Amino acid sequence: MTKQQDTLLPTINSPHDLRQLPVNLLPQLCTEIRQFIIDVLSENPGHLGASLGTVELTVALHKVFNTPYDRIVWDVGHQAYGHKILTGRRDVFHTLRKWGGIGGFPNPEESEYDAFIAGHASTSISAALGMSVASRLKEEDRQVVAVIGDGSMTGGLAFEGLNNAATNPNNLLIILNDNNMAIDDNVGALSQYLVNITTSQAYNKMRYDVYRGLKKMKLITDDSRGNILRFSNSLKALLTRQHNLFEGFSIRYFGPVDGHDLNLLLRVMNDIKHMQGPKLLHIKTQKGRGFKPAEISATEWHAPGKFNKTTGKRILPDSQNQPQLYQDVFGHTLVELARQDKRIAGITPAMPTGCSMTYLMKEFPERSFDVGIAEGHAVTFSAGLAREGMIPFCNIYSSFMQRGYDNIIHDVALQKLHMVICLDRGGLVGEDGATHHGMFDMACLRPVPNLTIASPLNEWDLRNLMYTGYKSAGPWVIRYPKGKGEKTGWHNPMEILPAGKGRKLRDGAHVAVLSIGPVGNEVARAIDKIGHRLSVAHYDMIYLKPIDEELLHEAGRRFKRIITVENGVITGGLGSAVLEFMADNGYTPRVQRIGIPDAFIRQGSMAELSRQCGIDAESIARTITGEEK
Amino acid sequence: MTKQQDTLLPTINSPHDLRQLPVNLLPQLCTEIRQFIIDVLSENPGHLGASLGTVELTVALHKVFNTPYDRIVWDVGHQAYGHKILTGRRDVFHTLRKWGGIGGFPNPEESEYDAFIAGHASTSISAALGMSVASRLKEEDRQVVAVIGDGSMTGGLAFEGLNNAATNPNNLLIILNDNNMAIDDNVGALSQYLVNITTSQAYNKMRYDVYRGLKKMKLITDDSRGNILRFSNSLKALLTRQHNLFEGFSIRYFGPVDGHDLNLLLRVMNDIKHMQGPKLLHIKTQKGRGFKPAEISATEWHAPGKFNKTTGKRILPDSQNQPQLYQDVFGHTLVELARQDKRIAGITPAMPTGCSMTYLMKEFPERSFDVGIAEGHAVTFSAGLAREGMIPFCNIYSSFMQRGYDNIIHDVALQKLHMVICLDRGGLVGEDGATHHGMFDMACLRPVPNLTIASPLNEWDLRNLMYTGYKSAGPWVIRYPKGKGEKTGWHNPMEILPAGKGRKLRDGAHVAVLSIGPVGNEVARAIDKIGHRLSVAHYDMIYLKPIDEELLHEAGRRFKRIITVENGVITGGLGSAVLEFMADNGYTPRVQRIGIPDAFIRQGSMAELSRQCGIDAESIARTITGEEK
Repeated sequence: MTKQQDTLLPTINSPHDLRQLPVNLLPQLCTEIRQFIIDVLSENPGHLGASLGTVELTVALHKVFNTPYDRIVWDVGHQAYGHKILTGRRDVFHTLRKWGGIGGFPNPEESEYDAFIAGHASTSISAALGMSVASRLKEEDRQVVAVIGDGSMTGGLAFEGLNNAATNPNNLLIILNDNNMAIDDNVGALSQYLVNITTSQAYNKMRYDVYRGLKKMKLITDDSRGNILRFSNSLKALLTRQHNLFEGFSIRYFGPVDGHDLNLLLRVMNDIKHMQGPKLLHIKTQKGRGFKPAEISATEWHAPGKFNKTTGKRILPDSQNQPQLYQDVFGHTLVELARQDKRIAGITPAMPTGCSMTYLMKEFPERSFDVGIAEGHAVTFSAGLAREGMIPFCNIYSSFMQRGYDNIIHDVALQKLHMVICLDRGGLVGEDGATHHGMFDMACLRPVPNLTIASPLNEWDLRNLMYTGYKSAGPWVIRYPKGKGEKTGWHNPMEILPAGKGRKLRDGAHVAVLSIGPVGNEVARAIDKIGHRLSVAHYDMIYLKPIDEELLHEAGRRFKRIITVENGVITGGLGSAVLEFMADNGYTPRVQRIGIPDAFIRQGSMAELSRQCGIDAESIARTITGEEK
Repeated sequence: MTKQQDTLLPTINSPHDLRQLPVNLLPQLCTEIRQFIIDVLSENPGHLGASLGTVELTVALHKVFNTPYDRIVWDVGHQAYGHKILTGRRDVFHTLRKWGGIGGFPNPEESEYDAFIAGHASTSISAALGMSVASRLKEEDRQVVAVIGDGSMTGGLAFEGLNNAATNPNNLLIILNDNNMAIDDNVGALSQYLVNITTSQAYNKMRYDVYRGLKKMKLITDDSRGNILRFSNSLKALLTRQHNLFEGFSIRYFGPVDGHDLNLLLRVMNDIKHMQGPKLLHIKTQKGRGFKPAEISATEWHAPGKFNKTTGKRILPDSQNQPQLYQDVFGHTLVELARQDKRIAGITPAMPTGCSMTYLMKEFPERSFDVGIAEGHAVTFSAGLAREGMIPFCNIYSSFMQRGYDNIIHDVALQKLHMVICLDRGGLVGEDGATHHGMFDMACLRPVPNLTIASPLNEWDLRNLMYTGYKSAGPWVIRYPKGKGEKTGWHNPMEILPAGKGRKLRDGAHVAVLSIGPVGNEVARAIDKIGHRLSVAHYDMIYLKPIDEELLHEAGRRFKRIITVENGVITGGLGSAVLEFMADNGYTPRVQRIGIPDAFIRQGSMAELSRQCGIDAESIARTITGEEK
């Protein structure tokens, strides 16, 4: 090694600078990047684990490839913090995920080094394939690299990409970043496959656990145990012959390679860089690498919030006397219902911790299904359960539900199956930004026949709606937000909220405000602010569909001015439903719609974004009093 | 063989009857079913090829399994005509796909033997897995069988299902019906894999063709040819050792088996029926089996229309002096544009014949991409092409676009990529029924920021819109219907239709009708019918988004009564957009919305369904004159 410089990172303002560094200094650079990420994230919460795992990979990619001419397509940007730091955003890295700052995911509008947007999983192979094919058609000698985690590989889109990767001339390089995790432990046969392919010890333990589980459930005989062993052996045989799943897709497979061995990565990448045709490099990395607590408990440290970087303790917000998270109310309530009725099951596409289905998994593992990043399957699998008389609660983040839109229409609504689709993260989500706001759910689901669509005012109503959905028939959609509820004692006795019935929260004479969901609490605060200046009625619709016609008749008859408020895109949602009703029934009030405007909304705190969209109490009050159009 | 009875089929009123037949009579039954399908379909158009290929499979399934207690989940119902005939619907089979008749796809509302709806591809594994898991949880000894074609296997949802099939205790049997076809020739690595696994002769020819193609494009060297050979050999090695793709998913694999050898099918199915755990039986069938013309030209005979069953000639409708199909206008226009600009590419998910991308494939194969049944990939792959400066025209049937909804939002709209998404089969589609009507596209895409959404009045405007989309920027959606256009000479010189600009087709004084798309021609006929009774203005909006505000201001100012007409679901579409505008701008006309009601619409002729939905000229006229609310 040459003499170590003091610090390298401050001198790296672009990958060009990195490529000038002698190779023997790159490990030091990696260490500095890692420390920089830990330093900044300890104060500014973000996705720690994934990006610590990809430091060597990131350095290797920018060393070997001629970025930005060559393209790196990151699958889900959680991995890409090191990439951001090395591509001219070191000095603004502390603004990550903040209002006016840089986004948490790659975004071509932010940097020419960000080749493709990446907030939702499993897109990278398809996108990079398109980019690679385009380069060939344009006779450019461009290299395109997709970096995809093993979690994202379970998404159908990734398979569609793989299945097409070999059908057109291209030089796509897929890097499978295998840390044996999505956010929670990875699931599915592919995950088994990857484990087996690399660490027979881990695999053998898992195989034994699976066997024990099956035996306990009396689902295994000696004969079928033989099958499991055969499977294991056949995979091993496959391995030694270098035949595997990916070569089944006509993609040359290389690996597995230690993703923290920088020199090895550099050598392999340089070797395969100019090979013709699509190829896959399988690297093994460790989530949280270089920060002990995160290495030990990867799920907890996926996005840990603030933490003390010296002690390795997370700085947890004081939740004493705070309202419960909607997520936890969902999770506990699901268990409560599942205790009452053994037909109830829980399904989540890779988000058991995020949506708190972990409680159900603990108490009723046999009725809990984490299907991996596979939203379409989550919905259609639930529909299959429902078809045979189970009552599935399928929990999907609102923005990821867009992946299961056809499944909701074709497999659920058309068959009028009794199941409850719980859309977590409905409305603005804050720091995750444009790709993650659950803003389209109400507008895109309202046109679908047979759906009942509801949103609770608070966590009590979330419980009531879950209970009502369970006790009712047909397909239900319950949409609720990220974060804290409104109540301190959340464990209310559950009651039926009749479908299609809203309620009057406050009577008034001059204006009627119709709201749906927790944004109704902002409306209440707004009306409090207004005080005696104006007499404002407030209706909580609860149901977007079927909408409460009796309530709307009352509003249409009594009020010359109606204001609708929703934490969702303003085009086609509650406001439009109210307009449709008034038009259909010959009422002519002046209707003003408040909601998320027809634009993608970047990141920021909930408060900042609510203000931007005019759905905070202050803005709503101004609209009601007419100070704002 | 026992003495042959005269005819068996009339005695089979349910699978119970079939199960009473001695096995040696079953081949005769197969022959009769096949002839019955040919007889009926020669007069009543339907999907001939797929169902002729599955006759033996259908008989074997109902013989071996105890339907309806055991469940058969057909993937895409095209295969299931024999199933319909054997399950009590023989006498109404001639009403297939007709108004008031039985549907073209399995539908639980139609028969207890139809386990799950199946109009869109790739759903069967996920649905059947859910059903199988539910049976286990309910401690029922139910067998669940998914029957999936090799075409459907290219859909990401099928892979998500496979990836999850082994993670929960279940006895799912997947039957891979491999006829080496979707509607058009199957594509992708999986298809190569299946070919190779069974017919090395076919594979070798293909391998040679691929090699020749790659060499011609100078994309192959001797070294990479080595890779191809290695791939082939590795697959062969895999084969002989019974290791394969499916066992990589921990699913026991059996086959391939000749799907027309009934005795073999019965034996294998009986053998594997009670094996624990998920399993896959790979059968090879021939599309169109038993009807020579269909055996020879499978794509043509996928859904041939009426035909002479003796001569084997299709009875083609007289298209002399008929307007061109929208599909053909699209196909020819795409070639015209591609000749002008080498950045233009065409992408279709498995529908090159249906959408007429075949013309582009013929003239510019290197810029044509049939990606298989993989709508999500089609969109994201196109986005990748667009990101590198190509101008992709991605053609998807409107109802299948629902599979790519998130891709349109996340990969296209958010990045403002310049590409043209052409939604074929927008609006009612007639005989294919509820699963296939393209009724949600306008309502679900209107809330998405950055999209330009247009629909042509006729095939001239389709050309103009394609040209305008090509010459503009950002993401475009052009939505047009199935079937014939309006003009006789379709080859108009293309001109720009400025984005966000509609046009006044006819002035009037009493009522304004605002329409979008070809349903505007019905409006014109309606106004003609009304004659001098009422003075009706007619505006063709052309663009749903951005909507023509100048035009709407004029309508809002001048008219007390406005009627909107769209061939799409009435909730959230054009009518809602007009209501939103009027409310936002303080106009208070009475607005009546005409469109597809908030319900799933069954099958029938276009004329019947248009009447049902009130979007034919007669109904529109009645609404305009006020005879109908």
